Amino acid sequence: MKKIINQANRVVPEMLEGFEATHSRLVRLLPEARAVLRRIPKSPGKVALISGGGSGHEPAHAGYVGFGMLDAAVAGNVFASPNPEQLLAALDELKNQAGILMIIKNYSGDVMNFGIAAEMAAEKGAIIEKVVVNDDVALAGRDKPDWRRGIAGTVFVHKIAGAAAEKGMRLAEVRELAERAVAGMGSMGVALSPCIVPEAGKPGFSLGENEMEIGLGIHGEAGARKTAVLPADEIAGELFARIRDDVGLKSGDKVAVLVNGLGGTPPLELYILARAARRLADQAGLNISYSLVGNYMTSLEMAGASLTLLRLDAELEELLAAPALTPAIYQPAPGQ
Amino acid sequence: MKKIINQANRVVPEMLEGFEATHSRLVRLLPEARAVLRRIPKSPGKVALISGGGSGHEPAHAGYVGFGMLDAAVAGNVFASPNPEQLLAALDELKNQAGILMIIKNYSGDVMNFGIAAEMAAEKGAIIEKVVVNDDVALAGRDKPDWRRGIAGTVFVHKIAGAAAEKGMRLAEVRELAERAVAGMGSMGVALSPCIVPEAGKPGFSLGENEMEIGLGIHGEAGARKTAVLPADEIAGELFARIRDDVGLKSGDKVAVLVNGLGGTPPLELYILARAARRLADQAGLNISYSLVGNYMTSLEMAGASLTLLRLDAELEELLAAPALTPAIYQPAPGQ
Repeated sequence: MKKIINQANRVVPEMLEGFEATHSRLVRLLPEARAVLRRIPKSPGKVALISGGGSGHEPAHAGYVGFGMLDAAVAGNVFASPNPEQLLAALDELKNQAGILMIIKNYSGDVMNFGIAAEMAAEKGAIIEKVVVNDDVALAGRDKPDWRRGIAGTVFVHKIAGAAAEKGMRLAEVRELAERAVAGMGSMGVALSPCIVPEAGKPGFSLGENEMEIGLGIHGEAGARKTAVLPADEIAGELFARIRDDVGLKSGDKVAVLVNGLGGTPPLELYILARAARRLADQAGLNISYSLVGNYMTSLEMAGASLTLLRLDAELEELLAAPALTPAIYQPAPGQ
Repeated sequence: MKKIINQANRVVPEMLEGFEATHSRLVRLLPEARAVLRRIPKSPGKVALISGGGSGHEPAHAGYVGFGMLDAAVAGNVFASPNPEQLLAALDELKNQAGILMIIKNYSGDVMNFGIAAEMAAEKGAIIEKVVVNDDVALAGRDKPDWRRGIAGTVFVHKIAGAAAEKGMRLAEVRELAERAVAGMGSMGVALSPCIVPEAGKPGFSLGENEMEIGLGIHGEAGARKTAVLPADEIAGELFARIRDDVGLKSGDKVAVLVNGLGGTPPLELYILARAARRLADQAGLNISYSLVGNYMTSLEMAGASLTLLRLDAELEELLAAPALTPAIYQPAPGQ
């Protein structure tokens, strides 16, 4: 196992310390809770957003804490859910009048622990709603929502709900917009290498010299099937078709696109994949109005990438385009 | 060779197409010249900046084209200098009254080809100055400037010179500031894996299961020495000491820090290295006033990272903090 780390059981707190030091103008760390919060809190009259999950997906989710996105992100151990006590400590920092929206990736540990924390906070008077993101189309269709994992599309939900909250929308409206994003979104990924959980010390699956996995999640698990390494355009073609069918995208639809690196794949390859996705969208008559290319939701040092497509209406489009200032996504107001 | 590409000899034009499509609000591509230019050109009364070099270092340099940084970036083949004709085509787009500064990483091909292009453009009436970046401290001290390669610190030069040009400073002043940055800066890297040039199809060096290279460049070449994989804090300690001695940093100095990923190393590890660098800076009495952590100057899919330290005076500090809006670095004006 080759990694730039000190001790396998110290990677999360050390990463968080480095993160806070690097982005101290934007965020602060609550070390015991492993929670990253905005340096300058949002007004209590606006809805607050909290997310989190296992570590190893950086910059998710701490990288999305800041103006126009999240108010708090809580980090579990690598690929392990944060516990309810951590989440409750972060929720205590967010106490407000407008209420709190939890953005949860669809894993049983996260759903359970965020749920317990929500109940504990509600008993103390907090107003909390939840949205569960299940954008992965690789394992199941929309008839089996529980089987669908939450992966990179979660970043779009952070952006949309964050902009809605920043505009002063009410909790029910922010939740409805986040749910609308989830309903119109699909993601699917490929891996060219496994990754190694530091405390495990060995990869979760193995791949031959010329093999790749298609349809995998972000926790080092194997994918839906193994194949020879395909050209970028074929990879994009397979991912695109699966997502298009899942979401029901039609010619004339406006979409947002995310080409997400899993940690070990460099920008050169991601942009080649982005080119392929762009051409497929053009051929399908889709109009791309927002796009991100980069490491937005990693899986440790896994080589690979995922594609996310999100159907946009005018409201979602405006919220994606709204300004944001976080460690991982900075964008000025449109026209600036 | 596992990569998300189509054909080894098509990676650069396809990457550039994907880059332009992704960042079309900020940049436009001159496809024949493989040059990325600002979508909205700078006023001709301000100094224009051009950089470039071999591909495989993305987001360098096209990712730094935009407000507050570069006006043009020209891409050669992977790890190969752009030719004078490409550079001249880009220079023709930048014709202005205030003059042009070339920012060149110290490789013989780049120095020669940028030099030839500068002469050709000067014959056509352009006013051109050059700065050569040689921040790598691994191979030679300041007594042998020709032996020092230009690596990740080049990003700081883009930021400083870009902010100076955006403020309307004259060409000689912009060049002097870029040279001041080069004089006060050092970088050094480590690799945990080699990388594979697509058209070569095999790695430039090999490493055992528990080996790393220290002091390598960004072109897949082996480093200054091979060692067992060290803990992050020891890696940081060795890089920090070498750079501190090279630059002559003293207690009380203000510095900028860049922890740069080489392409295959994820944010989790980079932030652990950033934490170590921060602690070393604190112990040495250095005051970090600007820091970047991420993939800023990659070496294809190489696993590894480099550390850059730059001594700041008040002027350099202000220029680093000035606003920028490019695909890879966006920062609002201080206080915004």
